[in-house]
Amino acid sequence: MNEFKRNQRLSVITRILVERPNHIYSLDYFSSMFDAAKSTISEDISIIKDALLKTGIGDIVTILGAGGGVKYVSSICREKKADFLNRLCNIISQPDRIIPGGYIYMNDIIYRADFADKIGAILAEYFIDTELNYIVTVETKGIPLALSVARQLDKPLVIVRRESRVTEGSSISINYISGSSKRIQTMSLSRRSIENGSKVVFIDDFMKAGGTAKGILDLMREFGSEVINNGVLIATSEPKQKLVDNYIALLTLYNINEFTNKIDIKPNI
Amino acid sequence: MNEFKRNQRLSVITRILVERPNHIYSLDYFSSMFDAAKSTISEDISIIKDALLKTGIGDIVTILGAGGGVKYVSSICREKKADFLNRLCNIISQPDRIIPGGYIYMNDIIYRADFADKIGAILAEYFIDTELNYIVTVETKGIPLALSVARQLDKPLVIVRRESRVTEGSSISINYISGSSKRIQTMSLSRRSIENGSKVVFIDDFMKAGGTAKGILDLMREFGSEVINNGVLIATSEPKQKLVDNYIALLTLYNINEFTNKIDIKPNI
Repeated sequence: MNEFKRNQRLSVITRILVERPNHIYSLDYFSSMFDAAKSTISEDISIIKDALLKTGIGDIVTILGAGGGVKYVSSICREKKADFLNRLCNIISQPDRIIPGGYIYMNDIIYRADFADKIGAILAEYFIDTELNYIVTVETKGIPLALSVARQLDKPLVIVRRESRVTEGSSISINYISGSSKRIQTMSLSRRSIENGSKVVFIDDFMKAGGTAKGILDLMREFGSEVINNGVLIATSEPKQKLVDNYIALLTLYNINEFTNKIDIKPNI
Repeated sequence: MNEFKRNQRLSVITRILVERPNHIYSLDYFSSMFDAAKSTISEDISIIKDALLKTGIGDIVTILGAGGGVKYVSSICREKKADFLNRLCNIISQPDRIIPGGYIYMNDIIYRADFADKIGAILAEYFIDTELNYIVTVETKGIPLALSVARQLDKPLVIVRRESRVTEGSSISINYISGSSKRIQTMSLSRRSIENGSKVVFIDDFMKAGGTAKGILDLMREFGSEVINNGVLIATSEPKQKLVDNYIALLTLYNINEFTNKIDIKPNI
C-alpha cells in the first residue's frame, strides 16, 4: 500500500474505530495496515482521543496486556444528553400520539435509526463496564433499541419470540403473567441462542409493571443464565414497585390523560 | 470552543460523518463548530475523502446547492465484499446448522450487529442512488438487517406486524398466501406508518417463492405507495420464478440435504 500521511491515517483509523464501537483493534492491525511503527500509530491514537474528548463526542480507550489494543467508546456529555432526552419527551408528548386505550404511538421514534442509535448509545453507557455476554430483547418493538445497544457494546443480540418457530430448532418456552394486563403469555427461545452460564442485559422499549422483564429473568434461568440488569426507554411511574429489582429507564411516564390529550413524561437526568 | 488543529478536526469530522451515514451535514455546521473558514473545512473534507477512497472503506460525497453539504457513504471494494460473502457462506453451511424440516439456523448470524452492519451496508449500496422514503420489513428475523439498511441510507424503518396491535392505533391488514407453504397469512400495518405516495424498499432475511414480498407490495398499494425494489440476504434458487419481478439477493441457496448434512449456498458476485 502507498505511504499514508498522518492526516490520512487519522481519518482512516477514526472511520474504522467508530464503525464498530467497543471492538478492540490491536495496534499491530493498524501498524501493518499503514506499514508504520507502533509508536507512530500510538501518537495517531492519542490525537484522535484528545479531539474526541475535547468535543465530548466519544473516547478512545486503551486495553493493556495480551489481546489488548484500542477501542472507540461513544459518549455524550450531560448537557447534550439532557437536550436529546428533553427533545424526545417533547416529541412523545405531542397530543395526536395518544391512541384509544391510553397508549402512545411511538413507532416513528423507536424505529428511526438515528434515534435508535442515540438511545442505544445512552443506554449502553450504563453497561459499558459490566461483564456480559448477550443483549436480550423480546419481539417486536424493542428490537431496534436492543440492536443498537448490542452494536454499541459489540455483543450478540438475542431475540426472544412470542411463540416457538419451526425454523429455529428446539426451544425452551415459559409462561408468564404480564404485570399490567394479568394475562398469561408465552415466550420462547431457541436452545442454541444462549450458552449456559451467561450474563445478559434485557433491553425493551417500555416497562409498566415489569412482567415481561420478570419473564425474561425466568427464561434465562432455564438457560442457566442471569439477567444482570434491564434497560428501557420508558418506564411508567406507577406501579412504583416493579417485578424486577433493578432497571435503567431513560424517561418516566407519569400520566396519559385521554380527555385533555396531555402526556406527562420526563427525562431521568 | 478552544482552537482546533487540522489533525483534531479531521478526527472529529470523520467521527460525526461516519456515525450517521448518508446524512447531509452543511459545511456551515462544521465551520461554526470549529470556528474555521469554510475553505479550511473543505480542505479537511477532501483529505478525509482521499484517505477513505485510498483504503476502499468509504467515500465522502458532496451535495451542491441549497440544502447541500457533505455526507459519508460506506463502501466495500469488490474483493473485500467477495471475502465477506464467502466467509458468510462458510459459516452458514456448517452441517450442524441444519434444523429438522430443512431449515438453517441463522439467528447468531443475522442478529450479530457487526454482521448485520456489513450485510446492511452491502445491500444499501444497491439503493443509494434510488429516491425512496422508507425501508420496510416484516417481523421478526429481517428486522436487524432492515434497520441496518435504514441506518446506512438514513431513512425511517417501518416494521409490518403479523397481526394488528392495540398499541399502534388503527391499521390496515391484508391476507396473503405464503408462496412456499401455501398457507393464508395476515400482515398488518398502522395507518400512521407510511405517507401516501411513498416509495419503499422491502428488506428481509430470506426469500423462497417471494410470497411475503408480494404481500408487502399489496399492502403498500393499500397505502398508495410503491415497492421500488426488494433486498434479501438469501434467496433460494428454486422456484426460479419469484412472485415479485425485481429483487437483490446477496447469497443463493441451492440445496439443503438433510441426509448428507450438506448445505449448498453461494454468493452472487
